[in-house]
Amino acid sequence: MNASMCFIGAGNLATHLSKAIQEKGGNIIQVYSRTTASAKELATKLNTSYTNTVETITDKADVYFIALKDSVVDVVLSQRNFENKLLIHCSGSLPLDVLKKYSDRIGVFYPLQTFSKKRELDFSQIPVFVESNNREIEKKLVSMAETISDSVQVLSSERRKFLHISAVFACNFVNHFYTLSSRVLESKEIPFDVIKPLIMETAQKVQEMAPEQAQTGPAVRFDENIINSHVKELEDLQNYGDLYKLISESIYNLHNKK
Amino acid sequence: MNASMCFIGAGNLATHLSKAIQEKGGNIIQVYSRTTASAKELATKLNTSYTNTVETITDKADVYFIALKDSVVDVVLSQRNFENKLLIHCSGSLPLDVLKKYSDRIGVFYPLQTFSKKRELDFSQIPVFVESNNREIEKKLVSMAETISDSVQVLSSERRKFLHISAVFACNFVNHFYTLSSRVLESKEIPFDVIKPLIMETAQKVQEMAPEQAQTGPAVRFDENIINSHVKELEDLQNYGDLYKLISESIYNLHNKK
Repeated sequence: MNASMCFIGAGNLATHLSKAIQEKGGNIIQVYSRTTASAKELATKLNTSYTNTVETITDKADVYFIALKDSVVDVVLSQRNFENKLLIHCSGSLPLDVLKKYSDRIGVFYPLQTFSKKRELDFSQIPVFVESNNREIEKKLVSMAETISDSVQVLSSERRKFLHISAVFACNFVNHFYTLSSRVLESKEIPFDVIKPLIMETAQKVQEMAPEQAQTGPAVRFDENIINSHVKELEDLQNYGDLYKLISESIYNLHNKK
Repeated sequence: MNASMCFIGAGNLATHLSKAIQEKGGNIIQVYSRTTASAKELATKLNTSYTNTVETITDKADVYFIALKDSVVDVVLSQRNFENKLLIHCSGSLPLDVLKKYSDRIGVFYPLQTFSKKRELDFSQIPVFVESNNREIEKKLVSMAETISDSVQVLSSERRKFLHISAVFACNFVNHFYTLSSRVLESKEIPFDVIKPLIMETAQKVQEMAPEQAQTGPAVRFDENIINSHVKELEDLQNYGDLYKLISESIYNLHNKK
């Protein structure tokens, strides 16, 4: 990785990815973020320079990593000339093609993980999915990804989108149910700690068996008494009762229509 | 644990609990299950006797563990006389009182975990919640629980019910979303393996931070473009699009109404 790099975006993903790349010798010469505090925070971690205006994004870099919210990618890129630069976005859902109008040398570098700034991660365990419309660039992306991750695959935009959707289910939605669970406990002053071993075991189970086989609980057993009594208890907790009913039906249907 | 015990029920919970108790010297003299195969399977593991008829449940035991589906507890218990026997049920949602009409000596012994027969578990890491209407029995239950678990608490029926509801959210519903995730991957022939590190990290994060703080993804960022495009892609997959929309709204509302 002897190319010089610029990070456009300084959020959770940019923070973890840029640090992993730098640790393996990557030369990151600038960080851009619209938010000065974020730009400065990440630049400090990387011991490099930063900017908060698109006009002053360096033109000296060979590679630009775009780690922005999908909806602002065009807004930022359209303000600058990236011709002949290698433009790489890190989005799960954006197709490769969105970069076409900004450069001939484009690619995707998508690490599949949930990133929070405060948490350390072992990047070698994070699967990375890359894509390009050019064989040379694809090779370059694979080799770049392999310096930081043990699991690298080439994946098309179409399939990457479904991978992203599956990640929303397995991570974002799952975490929301952890949150609802913690609120239910809170309502009876029971500490969230008691549920942590259950959360770990639930995740560990599906490392070894298919999630269909791991399903337990009143819904899959169709234990109507329990389901109804739980829904009744949740009446006072916003939409929890409705969600409970709906997910229980979904579980029952999935397991009884096979 | 020098009392002689009988297990009424031979499902996932009964299997794990009876093995853990026996390993610590508990004397299990009989297993009952309506299903002969289940009764025999567990009895073989425990090297003890079994029966599949309520009439032939032993009257020689001091302690009876009821590990049945909630809806059949009354059906089974009403067919026998358990007077002066210590009757213990293992349900998250049934109140202690359901046992009152069958004996004066009653209790609850509720291990909070997801049990599958095929998976080995370290019972010492499983929180156990006990209850009785009698101090002596409560003490006995605590000490019995402490022989197999490092985390034992006395908890009322009312609070145990909410604990159970929170477990449905954090385990049963979570596992359903693992299943939906695997189906989404399957629809594009992507192996479930790629999502496993994400599942582990999502669970590990909330061991250290509150789930509210750990929330990531399009819904909490209110990235409408992604949400709408994901929902559109899911049109052909049963109710997945509806669930996606609903959970995303729930995430957004919870995080923006604080």
